[in-house]
Amino acid sequence: MITRKIRFSSQTTAFYFNASFSALKELVPQKTTVIITDENIFSVHQKRFKGWNTIVLKAGEEYKIQATVDSVIAQLIEMKADRNWTLVGVGGGVITDLTGYIASIYMRGISFGFVPTTVLAMVDAAIGGKNGIDVGVYKNMVGVIRQPQFLLYDTSFLKTLLDADWCTGFAEIIKHAAIKDAPMFKELEESAIINFQRKAPALQKLIQRNALLKTKVVQLDEFELNQRKLLNFGHTLGHAIENQYQLMHGEAVAIGMCFATRLSEELLGFKGAGRLVKVIDRYGLPVQADYDKDKVFKVLSSDKKREDDAINFILLQRIGKGVIEKVKLKQLYKFL
Amino acid sequence: MITRKIRFSSQTTAFYFNASFSALKELVPQKTTVIITDENIFSVHQKRFKGWNTIVLKAGEEYKIQATVDSVIAQLIEMKADRNWTLVGVGGGVITDLTGYIASIYMRGISFGFVPTTVLAMVDAAIGGKNGIDVGVYKNMVGVIRQPQFLLYDTSFLKTLLDADWCTGFAEIIKHAAIKDAPMFKELEESAIINFQRKAPALQKLIQRNALLKTKVVQLDEFELNQRKLLNFGHTLGHAIENQYQLMHGEAVAIGMCFATRLSEELLGFKGAGRLVKVIDRYGLPVQADYDKDKVFKVLSSDKKREDDAINFILLQRIGKGVIEKVKLKQLYKFL
Repeated sequence: MITRKIRFSSQTTAFYFNASFSALKELVPQKTTVIITDENIFSVHQKRFKGWNTIVLKAGEEYKIQATVDSVIAQLIEMKADRNWTLVGVGGGVITDLTGYIASIYMRGISFGFVPTTVLAMVDAAIGGKNGIDVGVYKNMVGVIRQPQFLLYDTSFLKTLLDADWCTGFAEIIKHAAIKDAPMFKELEESAIINFQRKAPALQKLIQRNALLKTKVVQLDEFELNQRKLLNFGHTLGHAIENQYQLMHGEAVAIGMCFATRLSEELLGFKGAGRLVKVIDRYGLPVQADYDKDKVFKVLSSDKKREDDAINFILLQRIGKGVIEKVKLKQLYKFL
Repeated sequence: MITRKIRFSSQTTAFYFNASFSALKELVPQKTTVIITDENIFSVHQKRFKGWNTIVLKAGEEYKIQATVDSVIAQLIEMKADRNWTLVGVGGGVITDLTGYIASIYMRGISFGFVPTTVLAMVDAAIGGKNGIDVGVYKNMVGVIRQPQFLLYDTSFLKTLLDADWCTGFAEIIKHAAIKDAPMFKELEESAIINFQRKAPALQKLIQRNALLKTKVVQLDEFELNQRKLLNFGHTLGHAIENQYQLMHGEAVAIGMCFATRLSEELLGFKGAGRLVKVIDRYGLPVQADYDKDKVFKVLSSDKKREDDAINFILLQRIGKGVIEKVKLKQLYKFL
């Protein structure tokens, strides 16, 4: 087990890489901890949850809503969970987003930790303290920013991950490489998902590298006033099409990255579009999609990143160098 | 207008005492501000809201619930409110609690300010960043701690305040005096509500003194790890009976203070019980009540301040000196 402690504004978060789920007992007392997970994970890993208080939710982004929050809070009250209890989210991004949000508002905030069980959650969703729920078609419209007490990485959870979920996780890994890490981008160009699925050490190294890359960006700008915005590369259009067309998050982000790449060519003279599209395709992700221009534009206009008649869009100057650019809504509409 | 700026952990809050509501225009841009108020305040002060985006809620604690939050968020989305907008709660504690909570979770947090319109909100409810909603019979079960950008004090709002609401505000003033300010307690013993209603300067001075007393306690212990707990004097039993018996907040706190006073006599040999009960009575508040012991005990057992089989209870050593004592639930039950 490799331990790294990272200080945020009001919380130190411990990262336990190459760890085993069974180590959770040493991190939190079983009696005053509630594990929140979904029915898919629970049915596959039932044994691991023995002895833990557990709340099992229905699986899927469509349950990342207020009704689920209401139900969990009612169960916590029923369990007599007090301010000294801890919630532990064991699952993908939906579970960690919900768990972090519920822990942040229950009794005005209790402790929480995560055991991410997907590539996506391990390298991205579970990191950075952003949590919350969707409201109608608007993703993450409600939430807070609050850091977990710990993240425990047990890659054995990935053994049962579907291929499509591996791809969606790699969308964020490609994103990290594109905006911040040209050497990693080159490694991705020369490898493939199957290599990481077969070699645990290579996978663990890649996950740790990505988790710490994201953590470093968040640490410098926890409340997203500046550099943290870079992590939205591919996500602005991505979020606008994800729920409407029931895409997987990684698919939506992949399409969003391709769109942002074309914008980068047009507005910044970016030269690496071919390489980026090729890598996205290599990792089993879509590079284009049909969507209703007006419908998507309506959602874009309500994006959290909008300021008056413009959106802060993330573009690429070169591979490994993302930049934040104000793009007028009008200009975007023309380009959709 | 008297301005005092107070630094909290992640926000500086500006207090504008002896101010006029019309000064709000100078604090926030009308175009990107939404005032949240209730139908009582709106109908009496309609003129003041001209030119402002306004969301008018039904009045009363029974609307301090998730359904109201859902409705306001839907309206904010409809108004296309973005991260740079500001919410201003104009009202009593229910409105400021709701406004602070909604601003803290909408788009993961936008700015907010308060114009408290009751004595209770001016000296207590609007101060300290605690916000949230009730869940069933459990008061403030869900919420966060986040400080407002400003509080604007315009005592002309108090002209239409009902006598019962004056009393409820004075319950918190008496509480402040009992736990922290013996000289103020003496002044209260020698005065009466009517004196403050008739003399604006005396009222403004008393409100400012209480607002800053509470602010100082909060500033030293924003997240209620220690000294801030003193402000719960009278509130532990108070909250347990308030919603169940549909008491006014001040009535419930007054009964709670009398209960805590008897406990203080028993456990700490406190000598000032007679004086405290007399002042509570002098300011038009009840000093006892009939309640269902078992029902109340059940709610007490779910109190946020409970830790295992005990509750941190606030008792008095002497007038002006509150202390935090762990009291076993069993002991409490016997005393109810």
